Amino acid sequence: MINKLVVIGVGLIGGSFALALKRAGLVGEVVGVGRSAENLQRALQLKVIDTACQDAEQAVIGADYVFIATPVGQMAEVMQAIAPNLSATAIITDGGSTKRDVVELYRRHLAAHLPRCVPAHPIAGSDLSGAAAARYGLYEGKQVVLTPLPETNAEALATVRQLWAASGASLSTLSPDAHDSVFASVSHLPHLLAFAYMNTVLAKPDAPHCLALAGSGFRDFTRIAGSHPEMWRDIALTNRELLLQDLARFQEEIAKLVTDLREADGEALLDAFSAASAARVAWQKGK
Amino acid sequence: MINKLVVIGVGLIGGSFALALKRAGLVGEVVGVGRSAENLQRALQLKVIDTACQDAEQAVIGADYVFIATPVGQMAEVMQAIAPNLSATAIITDGGSTKRDVVELYRRHLAAHLPRCVPAHPIAGSDLSGAAAARYGLYEGKQVVLTPLPETNAEALATVRQLWAASGASLSTLSPDAHDSVFASVSHLPHLLAFAYMNTVLAKPDAPHCLALAGSGFRDFTRIAGSHPEMWRDIALTNRELLLQDLARFQEEIAKLVTDLREADGEALLDAFSAASAARVAWQKGK
Repeated sequence: MINKLVVIGVGLIGGSFALALKRAGLVGEVVGVGRSAENLQRALQLKVIDTACQDAEQAVIGADYVFIATPVGQMAEVMQAIAPNLSATAIITDGGSTKRDVVELYRRHLAAHLPRCVPAHPIAGSDLSGAAAARYGLYEGKQVVLTPLPETNAEALATVRQLWAASGASLSTLSPDAHDSVFASVSHLPHLLAFAYMNTVLAKPDAPHCLALAGSGFRDFTRIAGSHPEMWRDIALTNRELLLQDLARFQEEIAKLVTDLREADGEALLDAFSAASAARVAWQKGK
Repeated sequence: MINKLVVIGVGLIGGSFALALKRAGLVGEVVGVGRSAENLQRALQLKVIDTACQDAEQAVIGADYVFIATPVGQMAEVMQAIAPNLSATAIITDGGSTKRDVVELYRRHLAAHLPRCVPAHPIAGSDLSGAAAARYGLYEGKQVVLTPLPETNAEALATVRQLWAASGASLSTLSPDAHDSVFASVSHLPHLLAFAYMNTVLAKPDAPHCLALAGSGFRDFTRIAGSHPEMWRDIALTNRELLLQDLARFQEEIAKLVTDLREADGEALLDAFSAASAARVAWQKGK
């Protein structure tokens, strides 16, 4: 049972976590912190939070659980702000989409609190953002990856696991390196490709025709191109090394396809498409 | 009212068209033609068709409406087979995803029937295929693009329009060139990118981890990578000239992103992501 939960960044991820704990009866007061008064107002109206506060430093006084759910690019500032007022028992966790850099931030800004710091990544992102995107049940059947520090104590880790489990998520643990490699490939790369693809279409002389006639394939392929630009700039920059490696691999795959197409090599194309299709069909069946 | 409808290729597109006309009470007998006895058997069981036939040449005898709904790569053979037995009043149409090449095939193989040939492309593709994928209502709210020949007569065109409208689709008309340019960009290119992306992930040493932890962004981005490999080889080959142009444009976009990432140019990344995101959000609102 958490008496005072502070959610810093009341959007899809932070807001839905607060709603899940409220429904489970596991939280007393939820304090929402954010830069936008309008978003906090919305969060209050929607009963995602009980109290709003624009000052993270003040908000964490007396908190027993702090969830930093801002874009990764804002986390350094948030950690610096809250460090002086964190109690000696407060658990600090986050929802950042990259983990090597966030672990570094914990070390730099919350050195006195590392035993109660639990870096985490709930895999429940969406093209939606803001308090209005928060919803009950977001985490049902979703996965949360924890990347605990060597210093993280067992009690803090167990509490974070229990709360995520209560929200319906299943948990796994990875090293920050393994985490960032996996998510460069399955999340960050496709977002960049979707942005780049969308801009390719927009630059065409017949772009209006294209957009008017685009069907469900386009709809699904580009859904993530509607994502929060600032958040994705931060992710791209923080995971850029691994992302550049994946982009290079992808560029090679595209270069192969271009060669096959130029040479009208139907067999090579069929081989490539078949491998991809079989793997995608198997993946879907496994879910 | 169609007395005898022959659907050549009883899958998602052809089968769903037959179901739509049956429900609208606009068709007497539906004859399904295909290479796979198993698929035809399934189509009979599901009442997608009334009669099955593996021989297109025989099937079209007495038909007043022939819908060629095979992959584009099989259409030359189909047209050659049916040409001798088409009646002088039969309307011939297709569901091919490319139109310049299909128009060429009509000219080459059905020269005596051009006034009743109506090239068409229903925008209702999916990663699903086969008779079991056919369903009522597939075409509700979908678009069908017609690319009539200069020789196509008004009566044949009106009949094809009426049947598609009865199935719930809205219609537009484009030249074959304009059609192929639009669909290279909004359909063929994303399919190739999704296949290439999937193969990029599969080639990574941590591919099993990647697939195990992939979330909803990956799911939607890769849905079309589960598509029919043979069909997409045909489309890629038949529209390869325009596809190569689009791939070159996309490669430039990716090269720009790689440069911006290498230089950690957050402003340039934000500009690119913002343009894509705003356009995608506006597109969704317009739907």
